[in-house]
Amino acid sequence: MFRRLFTRRNIFLASAAIGGTSMASFFYKNNSDVKYFSKNDLKIHNNKKDGIWVSYKDDVYDITNFVDNHPGGVDKIMLAAGGSVDKYWNIYRQHLNNEFIDNEILKPMKIGKLKDYVEEVSEENPYKNDPERDTTLKFHNYFPCNAETPTDSIMDNWITPNNLWYIRNHHPVPMVNKDKYKLKISGVGINENQFTLDQIKKFPKKEVVTTIQCGGNRRDGLNKFGKTSGIPWGFGAISTAKWGGVLLKDLLDNCNITKELDKNNINHIHVEALESVKISIPVEKALNPFGDVIIAYEMNGEEISREHGYPLRLIVPGYVGIRNLKWIEKITTSSDEADSPWQSGISYKGMPHYIKDAKDISIKKLVSINEQPVQSVIVEDTINDKEISIKGFAWSGGGRGIIRVDVSADNGETWHMANLKEGSEQKMNKAWAWTFWDITIPKTSDTPPKIICKATDASFNIQPEPNKLSWNLRGLNNNTWHIIH
Amino acid sequence: MFRRLFTRRNIFLASAAIGGTSMASFFYKNNSDVKYFSKNDLKIHNNKKDGIWVSYKDDVYDITNFVDNHPGGVDKIMLAAGGSVDKYWNIYRQHLNNEFIDNEILKPMKIGKLKDYVEEVSEENPYKNDPERDTTLKFHNYFPCNAETPTDSIMDNWITPNNLWYIRNHHPVPMVNKDKYKLKISGVGINENQFTLDQIKKFPKKEVVTTIQCGGNRRDGLNKFGKTSGIPWGFGAISTAKWGGVLLKDLLDNCNITKELDKNNINHIHVEALESVKISIPVEKALNPFGDVIIAYEMNGEEISREHGYPLRLIVPGYVGIRNLKWIEKITTSSDEADSPWQSGISYKGMPHYIKDAKDISIKKLVSINEQPVQSVIVEDTINDKEISIKGFAWSGGGRGIIRVDVSADNGETWHMANLKEGSEQKMNKAWAWTFWDITIPKTSDTPPKIICKATDASFNIQPEPNKLSWNLRGLNNNTWHIIH
Repeated sequence: MFRRLFTRRNIFLASAAIGGTSMASFFYKNNSDVKYFSKNDLKIHNNKKDGIWVSYKDDVYDITNFVDNHPGGVDKIMLAAGGSVDKYWNIYRQHLNNEFIDNEILKPMKIGKLKDYVEEVSEENPYKNDPERDTTLKFHNYFPCNAETPTDSIMDNWITPNNLWYIRNHHPVPMVNKDKYKLKISGVGINENQFTLDQIKKFPKKEVVTTIQCGGNRRDGLNKFGKTSGIPWGFGAISTAKWGGVLLKDLLDNCNITKELDKNNINHIHVEALESVKISIPVEKALNPFGDVIIAYEMNGEEISREHGYPLRLIVPGYVGIRNLKWIEKITTSSDEADSPWQSGISYKGMPHYIKDAKDISIKKLVSINEQPVQSVIVEDTINDKEISIKGFAWSGGGRGIIRVDVSADNGETWHMANLKEGSEQKMNKAWAWTFWDITIPKTSDTPPKIICKATDASFNIQPEPNKLSWNLRGLNNNTWHIIH
Repeated sequence: MFRRLFTRRNIFLASAAIGGTSMASFFYKNNSDVKYFSKNDLKIHNNKKDGIWVSYKDDVYDITNFVDNHPGGVDKIMLAAGGSVDKYWNIYRQHLNNEFIDNEILKPMKIGKLKDYVEEVSEENPYKNDPERDTTLKFHNYFPCNAETPTDSIMDNWITPNNLWYIRNHHPVPMVNKDKYKLKISGVGINENQFTLDQIKKFPKKEVVTTIQCGGNRRDGLNKFGKTSGIPWGFGAISTAKWGGVLLKDLLDNCNITKELDKNNINHIHVEALESVKISIPVEKALNPFGDVIIAYEMNGEEISREHGYPLRLIVPGYVGIRNLKWIEKITTSSDEADSPWQSGISYKGMPHYIKDAKDISIKKLVSINEQPVQSVIVEDTINDKEISIKGFAWSGGGRGIIRVDVSADNGETWHMANLKEGSEQKMNKAWAWTFWDITIPKTSDTPPKIICKATDASFNIQPEPNKLSWNLRGLNNNTWHIIH
């Protein structure tokens, strides 16, 4: 009952719910068999050899076999090893009131209760300064905010209005004092420098239209093949904007970045945000004069909002959402990728279907997602007695344009070529934004049809048919045929 | 019997065979119903309205419904409309003694015989100066030469030896007088200039290792789903070399190419060869300082041979074979793609499986192949009582590195991750050359296994399962799972 009130648009109730009791204990069946542990019992279980235990409120969990699979990375979860997760989950509140986490992850790991537990007074809500949000967004979490563009508005706007942009935050939205803010540049082979927002705006302005897609977009479609970890996004974790800012290349050239990248062993550009997320991009992307990587201060003609990265957001056209980092503060040259959950860690690592546990693989050796595979989605369909009208979008990573969208309304027996609309005029090697498409197909059967779409990009890669091979542990990069009934 | 002697390595017999009678007439059954036409009857059938007729020796064909599907392009075949193809086929000799062309293409179009036919004395063999070739190559045609790298040598050399490189020529190999040769640069937004070979060699030397794959590699695998047109390549139309030359960017900068590409409407760089093949590449690839496009005069440390492009060959890392043009002579800036069978025409146009005839689609509007999709092939397998050892290669277009090769030895039930070997050390965004892989899998069944491999590239695109959707009219870009029994 309590849980049922926590509907996705019920933000105030959600806030109240956080003060409630642990949901894990709610599902704990055998009260007569409960084991009780002291805080000292916990403290010695802080490593893989002795076991890794944590408590949440008065419940104790053995997470030894889970830490490698923690979507936020093993480093983050180990901060709580041998102690309480409460203060961390006050920040990473997506752990709270989440049926999947309660039932599928926590419950099987519960080993008992804390015998000397005293409920601590809740710390201040770190999300109290988060901006107001459009209530028509499809919310998955509020703290941090994770919300999809409402699907019924996607096809209305080739450029997504700012208030309808999908939101994928990892932390509270930072409060920035514009007068104190500086973007800091440093590293080997470059002059250390700092730029105020006004100084940034004095560089030549570059505008670029890009579609940004979360690495987990369409994750919900993979869950039918097996449990994944992360937000169960539908297909709305993707949006498009026209960004205005300075070319990262111009900024780095202004700081006299060396021409001798190899000799200086410069392979990556690290970018760190005010709220601690850190990523990197290859130096070849950063310095390609046709790569269009910008540091944006404008979004769709307006000053970029706090929600979407004020004062500055890194825009990396053709790269997965996480590389388009909001609230950026530091830029550094480096020989290696950034060492963070979002780059070298598990968060954005695509694995094969046969890796069922991250323990079985060396995560740091896996390649991080930058460019994503070709994607297309059916957004709208209208059926009458005679015909079926279908609309959707298609996009591919790396600026690879959409050369074709194939649509079937009879379960893949016959296929038709969709009309490519807005976006199809982009260059085939710099198609940073999505392509809208539509098609009308004669209706041939009385049974409700199964409609399928699949796109081909300029590298002639295609979307795969969904099957057990599509599944992956983190539920990333789902670009299987989009099928609706 | 005569035909049987024409084995792939029997180059001298092949040469003799070309002097033989038309194979089409050999298969012509109903001699009693033969219609006879005059040369004047032919002459008026030179357009789509009246019909398009051609003769070959004394046979007459109505090719009206075929011209759009001509793999060499509609423009080329229309040169012969209303007349004889004999003099063209003296150059494009792949048309001769080709069972597929005889039975599948010519025979159904035959409408009669020429009544006033007199056999002309054969013109000189334009291929008489073609270089000698390694007899272990797998020859599909000799005139022009089309031959695969012998598959049993592929895994011996990560860098393919020059004599074992695959050959895909469209015409006789040009004879070049080094003292008269000049590379000519011209077009809008650039200073017209000419360079001798010695002048080219004075630019800073750039070396790059690339794998080059023909657009039709593995075409044979598509023929089981339907008739395609073109050479029925196995998987050996792919090879790797270390090229030495001048960066195209350096050469264009030396000719003061404008910085204002958009204002000058420069979108493509055209490149034309001495033997008339013409292609183009996007200006963003040509001028990307990390694109590694070079004009090569060296191949694997030796002066580039006549066979492989002497004196200069365009090397476009990550792009399909045809863009890596041999024997180049002219470079021109342009607003549009090159207008040629190999660029805007049908030769390298990937179509969906539901286009069964090129008449049904506007070929010029289709996107030309530049980057190819992710590919992998099983080259060697050794089976004993206990285990199966497998070796192969993987590659993807656009410099996208190979992040994984999955192998199954039980028809796709269980999968294993192959060891990535030579090539795996390349940067994930500049992996121009292939990656070798191997794996040993325990043998689980007594029946001969079905072995499958499929690769994933750095954009997380994967190879598709082969099925009727894989087929395309020109048989291009076959990157379906490689399966051996």
